[in-house]
Amino acid sequence: MCQLLGMNCNSPAAISFSFEGFSARGGRTDEHKDGWGIAFYKDAVCQLFTDHLSSITSPLAERIKRNPIKSTNIIAHIRKATQGPVVLENSHPFMRELWGQHWTFAHNGDLKSFHPPGEGRFHPVGETDSERAFCYMMDQLRERFAEYATTPPLSALFDTIAELAHEIGQHGVFNFMLSNGAVLFAHCSTNLHYVARAFPFSTARLIDCDLSIDFSQHNHRDDRMTVIATKPLTSNETWTAFRPGELKMFAEGQIAAHAAPLARNRPASMQLEPHLTTASLAHA
Amino acid sequence: MCQLLGMNCNSPAAISFSFEGFSARGGRTDEHKDGWGIAFYKDAVCQLFTDHLSSITSPLAERIKRNPIKSTNIIAHIRKATQGPVVLENSHPFMRELWGQHWTFAHNGDLKSFHPPGEGRFHPVGETDSERAFCYMMDQLRERFAEYATTPPLSALFDTIAELAHEIGQHGVFNFMLSNGAVLFAHCSTNLHYVARAFPFSTARLIDCDLSIDFSQHNHRDDRMTVIATKPLTSNETWTAFRPGELKMFAEGQIAAHAAPLARNRPASMQLEPHLTTASLAHA
Repeated sequence: MCQLLGMNCNSPAAISFSFEGFSARGGRTDEHKDGWGIAFYKDAVCQLFTDHLSSITSPLAERIKRNPIKSTNIIAHIRKATQGPVVLENSHPFMRELWGQHWTFAHNGDLKSFHPPGEGRFHPVGETDSERAFCYMMDQLRERFAEYATTPPLSALFDTIAELAHEIGQHGVFNFMLSNGAVLFAHCSTNLHYVARAFPFSTARLIDCDLSIDFSQHNHRDDRMTVIATKPLTSNETWTAFRPGELKMFAEGQIAAHAAPLARNRPASMQLEPHLTTASLAHA
Repeated sequence: MCQLLGMNCNSPAAISFSFEGFSARGGRTDEHKDGWGIAFYKDAVCQLFTDHLSSITSPLAERIKRNPIKSTNIIAHIRKATQGPVVLENSHPFMRELWGQHWTFAHNGDLKSFHPPGEGRFHPVGETDSERAFCYMMDQLRERFAEYATTPPLSALFDTIAELAHEIGQHGVFNFMLSNGAVLFAHCSTNLHYVARAFPFSTARLIDCDLSIDFSQHNHRDDRMTVIATKPLTSNETWTAFRPGELKMFAEGQIAAHAAPLARNRPASMQLEPHLTTASLAHA
C-alpha cells in the first residue's frame, strides 16, 4: 500500500509543514519507502517531481522541503510497492494532458483484478495497477466527453468520475486523488481524511515529527485550505474521515461537491455544497 | 530565440559539465533567461524539470548541477521568449505520452505562421508556437501509425519525423530535439552542432566558464556519447555543424540515421549509418 497527501487552497500556499510529517512516513515513522512524488499546480499547469528513492533519503525531497513551492493544488504520494518494481516510472503521481490541461493522479490501494482492454489513447509507461487505472479514467473521460474541445462542465465531470471510481473500485482498494489544477477530486475506498483550515487560524502539531506551526502567522483572513491525507497528519486538529465509497471535489480550499457511495447500476448523483452552484463551478 | 542542448550515450552519463557551460548562457554569457528545462531519461522513462526562472538564478538548476543525474538521453533548453509570457507552462522541454513512452521536445526558432487545426488528441497547455508544433507532431505520429499498439519501427518513424520537420519548417525556424528515451532526433533549420566523444577520451574546455574536464577519468573504454547544442560548448573539440534542413537520429551514443534536406513533394529517404541496420534500429 501507499499513502496520499493532497492540498486544495483558494490562494497559493506552501505544503512544507504537512509534507514534513508526511515524508517522514517514507521510511522513518512508517514503511512507505519505495519512491515518492509530488505535483504542484500553478493555475492549470503542473510541476511534477518523482523519485524512486525514499522520501527520507531523496535529495529532491530535501530540496522541496527547503524551497517551498506555493500552489493552489498539490498531490503527493509515498509508495510501498505492491505491483511493479521500485523504479522511477512506478512512482506516483502520474501525469497526462487532456483538454490542454495537466491531469495528475496518485493512488493508494491495490487493483489486482483490474485489466481494462488498453485500446485507448492513454497507455501506462510503468507497470503499476495505479497508472493502468489512471489511463483508463483518462480514456473514459475523453470518450464520454468526445464532443468537448475544452474541459466539460465540472458537474458533469464530477458525475463521470464518481461512476468511474465506483466501477474501478469493484476491483480492489481505490483511494485516489486526481486534479486538473482547477479542482481536486478525492475518492475513498478504505482510508482517507481531511481537515479544513480557515480564519481564525490556530497552531497545528505534527504527529510524525516534533514540529508545530502557527497558521495565523502565515495566512491572511481570507485564506482557506483543505488538506487531505490517508491518515491524519496533526494531533490537535479535527480530521474528518471520508466514508468508504465517497468522492469529494475540492475547489477554492473547501468541499465543492460530494457523492455518496454509489449503489450498483444507479447513476451518480452529485450534491453541490450550499455555497456553490453548478454555474460557479464551471468557472472554478 | 532559445538554445538547445542534447546528449545521447550508450551507457548512462552525467551532463553536468556541458550543462554548466550551457546554463551560463541563461543570463550570464548570453541572454536566454526566460525559463529553462531539462529532461533526463532512465531507459524509456523521463524525469522532467522545468522552471520559469533563469538557469543562472534557479535553485532547481543549481540542484541539478550539484546532484548530477546519469542518463542515456537528455534534452535541455534555455528560453528567450518570442511567443508567450515567461511562465512555467511555456518552458521547454514539453512532454507527452505516446505508445506508453514519454516523448519530450524542445525547440529553438519561431513558427509564427504555423497554426494547425488543433483537432487532434494532443493540446498545448501553454501558449508557445513550440508546444503547438510538438502536439501537431505527436498527433501526426499517432494518426499515421494508427495500426501500431506499440512504437513503430524506428526507420518508419524516422522517415515520418523527417517529413513533419520539413512540413513545419516551411513556417519558420525549426531547430528541435525530440526523444522517446530510446533514440534522440535532432533537426536543424539554421543552427545546430554536435560533437562525438569516444575512446581515447581527452580533455575538454568550456567556452562559457573557466572549466575543463578530462573525460578519460570519467569514462570506460566502451563508453560513447554525442553532445548536440545550438552553438559549440567547448573550445578545443571538433564540433560539426548540421546542414540546414537536416535531421539526424542518435542511438547508443552515435549517429544512427540521417536525412538530407528534403526537396518539396518528395518522400524522405533515410540513410542508415554503415554500422546499423534497420533491424538493429528496431531494437534500439
